[in-house]
Amino acid sequence: MATVKFPELAPPPMEDAEQLRKAFEGWGANEKLIINILGHRNAEQRKAIRRAYYEAYKEDLIKALQKELSSDFERAVFLWTLDPSERDAVLAYKAALKWKPGNHVLIEIACTRSPHELFLARQSYHVFYRRSLEEDVAAHTAGDYRKLLLLLIASHRYDGPEVNMTLAKAEAKILHLKIADKDYSHDEFIRILTTRSKAQLNATFNQYNNEFGHAINKDLESDTRDDYLAALRAVIKCMTRPEKYFEKVLRLAINKLGTDEEALIRVITTRAEVDLKAIKEEYYGRNSIPLEVAIAKDTSGDYEKFLLALLGHESD
Amino acid sequence: MATVKFPELAPPPMEDAEQLRKAFEGWGANEKLIINILGHRNAEQRKAIRRAYYEAYKEDLIKALQKELSSDFERAVFLWTLDPSERDAVLAYKAALKWKPGNHVLIEIACTRSPHELFLARQSYHVFYRRSLEEDVAAHTAGDYRKLLLLLIASHRYDGPEVNMTLAKAEAKILHLKIADKDYSHDEFIRILTTRSKAQLNATFNQYNNEFGHAINKDLESDTRDDYLAALRAVIKCMTRPEKYFEKVLRLAINKLGTDEEALIRVITTRAEVDLKAIKEEYYGRNSIPLEVAIAKDTSGDYEKFLLALLGHESD
Repeated sequence: MATVKFPELAPPPMEDAEQLRKAFEGWGANEKLIINILGHRNAEQRKAIRRAYYEAYKEDLIKALQKELSSDFERAVFLWTLDPSERDAVLAYKAALKWKPGNHVLIEIACTRSPHELFLARQSYHVFYRRSLEEDVAAHTAGDYRKLLLLLIASHRYDGPEVNMTLAKAEAKILHLKIADKDYSHDEFIRILTTRSKAQLNATFNQYNNEFGHAINKDLESDTRDDYLAALRAVIKCMTRPEKYFEKVLRLAINKLGTDEEALIRVITTRAEVDLKAIKEEYYGRNSIPLEVAIAKDTSGDYEKFLLALLGHESD
Repeated sequence: MATVKFPELAPPPMEDAEQLRKAFEGWGANEKLIINILGHRNAEQRKAIRRAYYEAYKEDLIKALQKELSSDFERAVFLWTLDPSERDAVLAYKAALKWKPGNHVLIEIACTRSPHELFLARQSYHVFYRRSLEEDVAAHTAGDYRKLLLLLIASHRYDGPEVNMTLAKAEAKILHLKIADKDYSHDEFIRILTTRSKAQLNATFNQYNNEFGHAINKDLESDTRDDYLAALRAVIKCMTRPEKYFEKVLRLAINKLGTDEEALIRVITTRAEVDLKAIKEEYYGRNSIPLEVAIAKDTSGDYEKFLLALLGHESD
């Protein structure tokens, strides 16, 4: 389901590190070389390169990249080169500190990562920012959003496949009742969404659909201008159909006047090693244009080349 | 700060496992041998014995102990032999499923373990019960308690020593204001108690004391019959003076008509490798009788011998 192409047997990390060092030398960086190397290594291989780079030059590769590169290209290479848990910490930090009701990045991180990945991100957050993600989320959000977001990011959901059908039926009823009452931030509503396992929630939403005749997300569309309802729909979509959620983020980012580079970079760098292939298929099905083509139209230069490399599609 | 005495160089784990197997043979178990071995091994050593026992006899030592032993002695040996994270999972499970407003076991586990230990307990919970601690706490608690307990057990607090004094002053004011308004379950009140690091909370409570002239726990005593206020005081005591908290649990357990064996066993088995020495000193200071003597008066037989071994004091 990943798109990024990397050699099974990559060059020794020290060789890659030396090549990168060379790419930084002279007047301006050799972006092509940087793309050729970092755009074609998986997380493990990048980590080894970063370690080798530090051993050889006593400088963090991430810092060196930030010094050499600029703008969207830099941001993309920077996020990509980070360890996934560090990348999530960086994204969550920005999302927490600049939180607005319509911003779903915290929901995305809490609901599309595995429980273990989410925990690793919270650990990296401690290391980077010397406080917890919970503290920052609690301090920068309020009201119903805080109730929802705080438990979403703090829960360590069970990750097993077991499903309790009796529970699914009972909780589908609770969700339906609260929606009928428009009591969307009721403790029970939030409790179910934030603590149940992915498998259990899927069973509950299926049960909801069977018993009440609509998908739960349809029933949460009663007021499409309401940001809080949109947040609830994002939670449910991220838990059940992440590729559809990400397709929409990409579609809105690309269709926006002036492209939302931040969203584009975020989705490509975080999903290239996970499910970007499924997202690409979803995108093609929904927009009748391959994602690579849409991105190539909207971007240019090394930035374009790098994103296309992560998409598994070489630009030359 | 630990009390349990163990040989730096213990016998090979397989030898201990064989001895234990022998102790289980024949008519009734050889409790003395069980105490001599398990009562004098640290967590690492017990883990190795359990592994060796399983390799040799294809049976979990824990199961074998439960089969051979009975009553309070069994419960104590069982809890002690578990890995600390498993023990916390077992204790939290029971506390969540039988939760009552006056029961502080969940608070104790959430606030006296390190953030990492708490997380390990939550992982063990997944393995043992095929669901998350959050789910069970959310399903068995309600109202203000749920708000408090859910975030207490789900938070992964920052564990570093850094303190932000500006923040401590601001948050001491918030706490004071909410206490003055008797708004003890206000989101801000709960947010501060459940997400801030231990170091930061200590600074905040000190600041509270300096600025308002009373310890915060004194101001939370306005109504000593109120279980929710008692829960808040337990949170604060566990975060700031765990040895005082545990001294009180032991005192109440021992002074109770008929001894609260469950609380006694819990505190001794969970603290013997952590801070039971400090708790013993606190106990002596408060009750003018050594903890070992008080426990020996209230217990008997192998059960007494085992608890005294964990307290570092042999009964014969």
